Amino acid sequence: MNFKEELTGLTILVDDYLKDYFSRLKSEVPETKLIESMNYSVMAGGKRIRPVLTLAVAKMMSKDLIEVMPFAAAIEMIHTYSLIHDDLPAMDNDDYRRGKPTNHKVFGEAMAILAGDALLNEAFSLLLKTSANAGEKMEQSVKASCVIANAAGKDGMIAGQVIDMESEGKQISASTLKTMHRKKTGALIMASVIAPAVYIGLSGEEIKALSEYAEHIGIAFQIKDDILDVESTSEELGKPVGSDERNNKTTYVSLYGLDGARKMLQEVTQKAVEVLEIFGGKAWFLKEIAYFIAERRN
Amino acid sequence: MNFKEELTGLTILVDDYLKDYFSRLKSEVPETKLIESMNYSVMAGGKRIRPVLTLAVAKMMSKDLIEVMPFAAAIEMIHTYSLIHDDLPAMDNDDYRRGKPTNHKVFGEAMAILAGDALLNEAFSLLLKTSANAGEKMEQSVKASCVIANAAGKDGMIAGQVIDMESEGKQISASTLKTMHRKKTGALIMASVIAPAVYIGLSGEEIKALSEYAEHIGIAFQIKDDILDVESTSEELGKPVGSDERNNKTTYVSLYGLDGARKMLQEVTQKAVEVLEIFGGKAWFLKEIAYFIAERRN
Repeated sequence: MNFKEELTGLTILVDDYLKDYFSRLKSEVPETKLIESMNYSVMAGGKRIRPVLTLAVAKMMSKDLIEVMPFAAAIEMIHTYSLIHDDLPAMDNDDYRRGKPTNHKVFGEAMAILAGDALLNEAFSLLLKTSANAGEKMEQSVKASCVIANAAGKDGMIAGQVIDMESEGKQISASTLKTMHRKKTGALIMASVIAPAVYIGLSGEEIKALSEYAEHIGIAFQIKDDILDVESTSEELGKPVGSDERNNKTTYVSLYGLDGARKMLQEVTQKAVEVLEIFGGKAWFLKEIAYFIAERRN
Repeated sequence: MNFKEELTGLTILVDDYLKDYFSRLKSEVPETKLIESMNYSVMAGGKRIRPVLTLAVAKMMSKDLIEVMPFAAAIEMIHTYSLIHDDLPAMDNDDYRRGKPTNHKVFGEAMAILAGDALLNEAFSLLLKTSANAGEKMEQSVKASCVIANAAGKDGMIAGQVIDMESEGKQISASTLKTMHRKKTGALIMASVIAPAVYIGLSGEEIKALSEYAEHIGIAFQIKDDILDVESTSEELGKPVGSDERNNKTTYVSLYGLDGARKMLQEVTQKAVEVLEIFGGKAWFLKEIAYFIAERRN
């Protein structure tokens, strides 16, 4: 099986699960407008990189993908809520995301705040229900859920958003930039890889390797984002390009130049691939994801 | 022991736990501004009715209060986040709560959104960590956490906020009003009572009685709120009075008149007390809480 086929297959699995999940909610929950608003952003064309990573770890270890799907879906819900709140007028004030109007442009600010809240709550609701029904795997399920809760919270993703907010319009150091991204986007990417590893019960050595892998692709992801903001087109990206420079934002490109950033991207991608050696050939897809992140056009 | 002493004692237990919890976070988490913003609203003088109910159920059954404290604290964090988001300009746009400036007035809108998000996340983080360390009580702990997640989410508290928002400036029916309050405030009050009951492992009959009790005090709480908005003073209430009428809001008073609302309050309070009969004398404090809710001055 080639990379493109595998990626498409796993993405469809995630999409179908989320589609089913929210159409079930629509028929069960009387507040249909709220569910519509949640569903709108969950289905707004995200790349599903995080949930695909979760499934990929399970598949690499020949485990049942359906068992880790709740972790994958919960992470995608958390990712989605963070985008809805990030786009709000009081935050980044973005009208478009992935070429579509942002949640508050369609449903209004109040509903967007509540839909974000409800998605975060739903993620944990799903994790807890999954854990309650996990039988002898309950402890692993709860611990995997803890990994996600830690990554998403006050010392993970939200902390990253705070640093981002406080850095607005300022030049920041390379180390602050790295910390910000490690928390803002890196933490949830890390959880996507480590939550299934904890659930499956991988060894300390395996978890360490996966965690280094996740750290590197997290950085690669951000460097590539910064590069795309300079060299992509609005059509390809689904959002305006050049916004980092206009907003006087510190990025990997502003700190290291376009060539410097490209070189760093290549290096961290290489490192991400190398640390997976202990898994041998079965890590092929995770390695390809690292290259994919570095080479993507949007 | 009399009611006042017991209430004060349990409130202090909750306050101390939360104070410790957030000062630990302050020393552990680098994003101190975020923790300060979370802490500000958690410590802004809430009555702690929900967490006190949680402890009261455990105490009634002669169980260790410390064991149910994480449920109590998580519920208070969820309650607090909902107030922060509710007060935002895009929602109720309130400048004061309990006589103090609202979170976004002190920390700005963006930080208030993030602090709310972080409190919701922290509540589940605490519940999951508690469950992971619950040993042979893990299943009960996870199930009690599920009760809280369901109460707070898309078919509970958040659904109630959506109904409230959609009812703005409109006259609504008595049944819509009841549904709105059952979800917006009732659901979390219910969880405060049922989560410890599930954790402790009470019988179906006991849980049914407690759930009827919670339903009734939830309604009583709201009727009393509506009455206070008419007959209290701004000083006593810590917020402007008469705002329901000014905002053309449907309330128990607008639907049934002041006397009608008072009569209903008396009836539901009586019912709340009666359903606790199966617990005998040890339910004294829960019964007193019902009277306290009906008689409070703010």
